[in-house]
Amino acid sequence: MKPTEVLIDALEYIKKFRHHLFVIKLGGEIIANEDKLDAVAKDVILLSYVNINPVIVHGGGPDITKTMEKLGKKPTFIKGLRVTDEDTMDIVKMVLVGKINTAIVARINKFGGNAVGISGKSGRLFSAKKQKSEVDLGLVGEITEVNTELVKVLVEKGYIPVISPIGFDDEGNSLNINADTAAAKLAGTLKADKIIFMTPTGGVLDKAGNLIPKLTVKEAKELIKKGVATGGMIPKLEASIEAIKCGVKTAHIIGSGEHSILEEVFTSSGVGTMVTEK
Amino acid sequence: MKPTEVLIDALEYIKKFRHHLFVIKLGGEIIANEDKLDAVAKDVILLSYVNINPVIVHGGGPDITKTMEKLGKKPTFIKGLRVTDEDTMDIVKMVLVGKINTAIVARINKFGGNAVGISGKSGRLFSAKKQKSEVDLGLVGEITEVNTELVKVLVEKGYIPVISPIGFDDEGNSLNINADTAAAKLAGTLKADKIIFMTPTGGVLDKAGNLIPKLTVKEAKELIKKGVATGGMIPKLEASIEAIKCGVKTAHIIGSGEHSILEEVFTSSGVGTMVTEK
Amino acid sequence: MKPTEVLIDALEYIKKFRHHLFVIKLGGEIIANEDKLDAVAKDVILLSYVNINPVIVHGGGPDITKTMEKLGKKPTFIKGLRVTDEDTMDIVKMVLVGKINTAIVARINKFGGNAVGISGKSGRLFSAKKQKSEVDLGLVGEITEVNTELVKVLVEKGYIPVISPIGFDDEGNSLNINADTAAAKLAGTLKADKIIFMTPTGGVLDKAGNLIPKLTVKEAKELIKKGVATGGMIPKLEASIEAIKCGVKTAHIIGSGEHSILEEVFTSSGVGTMVTEK
Amino acid sequence: MKPTEVLIDALEYIKKFRHHLFVIKLGGEIIANEDKLDAVAKDVILLSYVNINPVIVHGGGPDITKTMEKLGKKPTFIKGLRVTDEDTMDIVKMVLVGKINTAIVARINKFGGNAVGISGKSGRLFSAKKQKSEVDLGLVGEITEVNTELVKVLVEKGYIPVISPIGFDDEGNSLNINADTAAAKLAGTLKADKIIFMTPTGGVLDKAGNLIPKLTVKEAKELIKKGVATGGMIPKLEASIEAIKCGVKTAHIIGSGEHSILEEVFTSSGVGTMVTEK
Amino acid sequence: MKPTEVLIDALEYIKKFRHHLFVIKLGGEIIANEDKLDAVAKDVILLSYVNINPVIVHGGGPDITKTMEKLGKKPTFIKGLRVTDEDTMDIVKMVLVGKINTAIVARINKFGGNAVGISGKSGRLFSAKKQKSEVDLGLVGEITEVNTELVKVLVEKGYIPVISPIGFDDEGNSLNINADTAAAKLAGTLKADKIIFMTPTGGVLDKAGNLIPKLTVKEAKELIKKGVATGGMIPKLEASIEAIKCGVKTAHIIGSGEHSILEEVFTSSGVGTMVTEK
Amino acid sequence: MKPTEVLIDALEYIKKFRHHLFVIKLGGEIIANEDKLDAVAKDVILLSYVNINPVIVHGGGPDITKTMEKLGKKPTFIKGLRVTDEDTMDIVKMVLVGKINTAIVARINKFGGNAVGISGKSGRLFSAKKQKSEVDLGLVGEITEVNTELVKVLVEKGYIPVISPIGFDDEGNSLNINADTAAAKLAGTLKADKIIFMTPTGGVLDKAGNLIPKLTVKEAKELIKKGVATGGMIPKLEASIEAIKCGVKTAHIIGSGEHSILEEVFTSSGVGTMVTEK
Repeated sequence: MKPTEVLIDALEYIKKFRHHLFVIKLGGEIIANEDKLDAVAKDVILLSYVNINPVIVHGGGPDITKTMEKLGKKPTFIKGLRVTDEDTMDIVKMVLVGKINTAIVARINKFGGNAVGISGKSGRLFSAKKQKSEVDLGLVGEITEVNTELVKVLVEKGYIPVISPIGFDDEGNSLNINADTAAAKLAGTLKADKIIFMTPTGGVLDKAGNLIPKLTVKEAKELIKKGVATGGMIPKLEASIEAIKCGVKTAHIIGSGEHSILEEVFTSSGVGTMVTEK
Repeated sequence: MKPTEVLIDALEYIKKFRHHLFVIKLGGEIIANEDKLDAVAKDVILLSYVNINPVIVHGGGPDITKTMEKLGKKPTFIKGLRVTDEDTMDIVKMVLVGKINTAIVARINKFGGNAVGISGKSGRLFSAKKQKSEVDLGLVGEITEVNTELVKVLVEKGYIPVISPIGFDDEGNSLNINADTAAAKLAGTLKADKIIFMTPTGGVLDKAGNLIPKLTVKEAKELIKKGVATGGMIPKLEASIEAIKCGVKTAHIIGSGEHSILEEVFTSSGVGTMVTEK
Repeated sequence: MKPTEVLIDALEYIKKFRHHLFVIKLGGEIIANEDKLDAVAKDVILLSYVNINPVIVHGGGPDITKTMEKLGKKPTFIKGLRVTDEDTMDIVKMVLVGKINTAIVARINKFGGNAVGISGKSGRLFSAKKQKSEVDLGLVGEITEVNTELVKVLVEKGYIPVISPIGFDDEGNSLNINADTAAAKLAGTLKADKIIFMTPTGGVLDKAGNLIPKLTVKEAKELIKKGVATGGMIPKLEASIEAIKCGVKTAHIIGSGEHSILEEVFTSSGVGTMVTEK
Repeated sequence: MKPTEVLIDALEYIKKFRHHLFVIKLGGEIIANEDKLDAVAKDVILLSYVNINPVIVHGGGPDITKTMEKLGKKPTFIKGLRVTDEDTMDIVKMVLVGKINTAIVARINKFGGNAVGISGKSGRLFSAKKQKSEVDLGLVGEITEVNTELVKVLVEKGYIPVISPIGFDDEGNSLNINADTAAAKLAGTLKADKIIFMTPTGGVLDKAGNLIPKLTVKEAKELIKKGVATGGMIPKLEASIEAIKCGVKTAHIIGSGEHSILEEVFTSSGVGTMVTEK
Repeated sequence: MKPTEVLIDALEYIKKFRHHLFVIKLGGEIIANEDKLDAVAKDVILLSYVNINPVIVHGGGPDITKTMEKLGKKPTFIKGLRVTDEDTMDIVKMVLVGKINTAIVARINKFGGNAVGISGKSGRLFSAKKQKSEVDLGLVGEITEVNTELVKVLVEKGYIPVISPIGFDDEGNSLNINADTAAAKLAGTLKADKIIFMTPTGGVLDKAGNLIPKLTVKEAKELIKKGVATGGMIPKLEASIEAIKCGVKTAHIIGSGEHSILEEVFTSSGVGTMVTEK
Repeated sequence: MKPTEVLIDALEYIKKFRHHLFVIKLGGEIIANEDKLDAVAKDVILLSYVNINPVIVHGGGPDITKTMEKLGKKPTFIKGLRVTDEDTMDIVKMVLVGKINTAIVARINKFGGNAVGISGKSGRLFSAKKQKSEVDLGLVGEITEVNTELVKVLVEKGYIPVISPIGFDDEGNSLNINADTAAAKLAGTLKADKIIFMTPTGGVLDKAGNLIPKLTVKEAKELIKKGVATGGMIPKLEASIEAIKCGVKTAHIIGSGEHSILEEVFTSSGVGTMVTEK
């Protein structure tokens, strides 16, 4: 296909999605891989150039664990949630906000975008409270309110917000928030058009191991219930369901192959699983 | 090349040209060819989708001649300029504004753009006076003032202006304006970043018949003087020189092959001749 | 009456109508008469100067017929509707948009107004579909949607829009729209305060041949039903009824005598027939 | 002349003056006469309706004198300036701001305008200092600075400002300012297009007692020097000269006949004397 | 307490009230006392500096009576309402608008605020009709409509409006309006957050003569009914009740001690009586 | 002094500084001390409440050193500049952006402010290049360009920007920037009214150890040259001189005692050293 034909083929998708808002969740394995991060950065810039507004939320579990170990702290997990004491919270903030967020911002800006990195404490973005749990998880929080004003100002002025999932409670304490949930709550409050989860595994697979291209919320719940969806896919599906419940039009779970965002958005087949209301 | 790579390759050019204003002159042979017009329409929409602001100026000589003949009027030309009596002027307006302009608008809007067709009388765009000449050319005019307010309003609101080169004198009479000159004057007054002339012949050729990819204003003048540039290429070069003199950064003379606009703008080699100050 | 007294008398009407929007339909016989067109142009400018916003819609049947005949095509009408094949549609566009619209714009701008001529294809103004009919009328359309965005932008920026009643279907084809209906639909969608039909015959007459100064919608329907209103008056009354149904406050059917718009608007007696809801 | 012709004739003047700003000085004898005040109010409203922005400055000497006498205070004048002690200043404020200003506002609003009455203390309009003089004049001031922000806000929002010439010094004390000078300074700082002085005597007369329709600044100075202009005409001419020096285009000294403002502005002959730079 | 601690303590109240709108009614005894007026002016400026928007309404009964007497007119009151003939109305306007209003504006501007004095006739603020009464009270009015547009423009542009309670009827006649009622109606229409009545007596006292710090509307009505609230306190309570009924959050009746506004607003105890819905 | 008197006394300073922009540099020792940080947070909020716009730039040297040591890296300094290899740069970002910046934001937001924490990479704030030096300092940078757009957007929308001094070079690499210099360059480019350096030592002392309340740029240079200013005071003075050279009106070097910002800004004596042009 000639390059100009590709551009002309893209017209249809640009027309469909321009002026839409996409929340994109980046997982730790993308951030750890320079080439993948560069590819994501370029995808995000291209979206912004065709007037699709991307908002990035990132995780960073592996990096946190590594830094904890370097500092001689042993990471503990209960049901997949990191037990977070004060020292661990400091490490979480240092790794997420200080290292990963600035790295994403650097990549986007290097290739011509204009990103702004913020934590969920800036502009009172994520209000949170300690997550209730049988065992004390420490400073692990759940979001109680999302204040989207700052994100809206940044988007309106043409910036690409890059957000670390740190919340704050009434006392101003930092709380460690799950990035998938943070992305879903943010997308829901912003009434985003799409939420896209980039994962190392790609989309949802059926029992036979084949990619499921489309799922309704009901089917997604079924997959969880029946145990077809397992491991890390469960929180992705749950976050997708939550986002759609709050008004997001479609949720996408895609792999972290190069330019998988563009492939999902700008081709009819897509590369992952799309979840819709019905 | 994978489609996503094409899109990513386009990033560099989008970054360079976004928020720029391009005046594009369409010649009669494009308008007469449905496929070519469709291709141009899509190119123009793509430009507008990546925040490059296109403004179209069109000609239509062959169509005018054909309609005159149908109506039993014999076209007369003096030094390439159509002698224009009152009846001819009526035909010029009917063909340019009524037929060609609405056809271009229809094509752009069909594929998802939002064009607005106007003549140079609307919003007092082209003030003109009768062109002085040894022989009386009738209602042939030269532009004395360009009022860009309406064009700026339309561009700012996201419309794609499509302009017929009709001027008006102090008495409100219509005057037939050369489309190349009208495009150049408009581009100059708008301080456009590029002016692009689409011609059946493609870019400027040297004596050996090879395309000259780049010319300075000085070299262009030389080509005219030495008789290397001939026929219809002369007014294109003169209009390019005029536009650059008024502050337009680059002028492009390109062929009317499909998507030649995109090829000229989004590839490093281009497909035509680019004229620059130095 | 001293001139200053006239101006002072006008205060009451200016006060009443300032910031109102008037849709004015001009019939073919006004356009054919230079003096009448000049008078209308001045009336329209005066309205705009006292902050009443005029929007012009024009017809042009006689001129179309004349041009068809010059080109050797025989006009055919079925129940008053012009059978419109492709060639006829080209002539309709050439005459309406190319000749009549530019002539109205020229007149208004000559006397100090700032008009912008557009067809119903620009800014996606009139979406239409082929009109259903027992016999095939060809490219005759009825409006399915009015997109007033462009008209609002022009009015807000101080321009006087002059509109040719050409619509476009989903395929981008041009459709010939009745000008009275187009004006009524536009006025209704714009929630205009007044719609004014300028006709050669003046207002509605009763059986005795006397002008009826005021009619309710109910009375207007009665006049049609009882056959008191006949010929060209029926579509005017029907368009008036349609406009009022869509929220226009008053419809006026007036003659094309000089300055009849000003007389209708700025005097208590008026010169035509006013139709109101009740 | 038919009323519509009058309106059409006014087009030329409206076109010329729309969006202009006129400062109009009303003298005491107009304010004292209900009919004249009504006529002025209507003129001012008409100006505002055709987008000419009027700003009113008023005097009120006779009324002040009358009120002083009622309260048993004897007015004293030195070279035409009222000696103003604290009690007199209170009376000046009560009469100008409390009585005359509210009366003008009432008249304008009664006939459909939207006036706002303010003194020169509001919005820090007129900063002033005590006028130096051989004999102590008390609280008589001369303007040191004009802060036009409030007046501009009111004009921009469509209000008609009505201003009493009271200034304030650095201590917040009120100072009695000559109304002609206040109008001239205000017009100059606003870069008004016209300043109009309404006087009981009408325009400037030559030695033979004939009205002089036009004067240059130089000629006006000559008239004062040679003693042709006498009495109350001298301060009017001086204020005209001052206003023009500060950038006002034309100054008009007209009589207080009914609708003399409209006659001066909307007819070619005018009714008073126009002073221009050259 | 160290000064910086005072400022830091004020944070809590500033945070609570910033961007709120307070209508403050000043009684005659404050206006008559230079020191008190200076203190109020400073309080009002401080409010405006911390982004609390004050709007002042003033009375002036004693001063009117005094001026009437000086002019040899005998004031007559029926049930606390001043019988107002034409001459009295002139005096009311002169004293309220000319003397008191300009004095308040002068004080506020002297200390660095930016006040604008207007009467209820400016910007069509207070429409009114003659108050019905068994005996003819003359030009005593009750408000029929409050047009807050001008007040909102002034507040938005950072000015402090100072308002004299003069209304106008359909004929443009001035009507004398009770200042407490005017303040309540204005606060209600503006949906103000607080209305504050400054009175010589301070807040509401119980039978034992002790200050009642808080009252519900129901309790306030009870106090009136039972005769605990007497004299001038009754109209203050009734105006408070009226304002709260129209949506004002709290009404405050406070004394005229120096800086009592700041004490009421910026301390937890307050200095007067606060009336709330419940 | 009564609390209300303190507030009233503050009027003068609020009047003087409202709508001004202050850049405030916080040193490491304030950040390390919870009480001091709380006091600074409240001072900053109070400034913002009275419409003085604070922009915070922070350092964090001691914390970086401590974290490096925890991670087993030995800090090396050459002429006071930290030798910064890639690992060190990661630690710098983690400590400055992840830990200190989020802590300052948390404090300000806890007490009712609305802070937004960003690094110099966001919004392309600090472009930088490697600092030239005889010995290779690694990733130590000097600012080449300050892009204040993002900071202006945040200030205009009412946020308090908190900025970590990290720059980026043309390749997108992070560079460690001296916080004093970053604050000075930022203040200069923003044309801030004041730059305030909070230091543990307080203002500049003379030879006898007494505080010097005021210094001109010339005197400041003299103090450095003569060796009276030593150690950490030299970069503060140099940054002050640099800021003033770029158009900042006054630079203040103050101690980190509680509420020292308010004392410096809101009292006539101040608590530190003020440097001015002359």
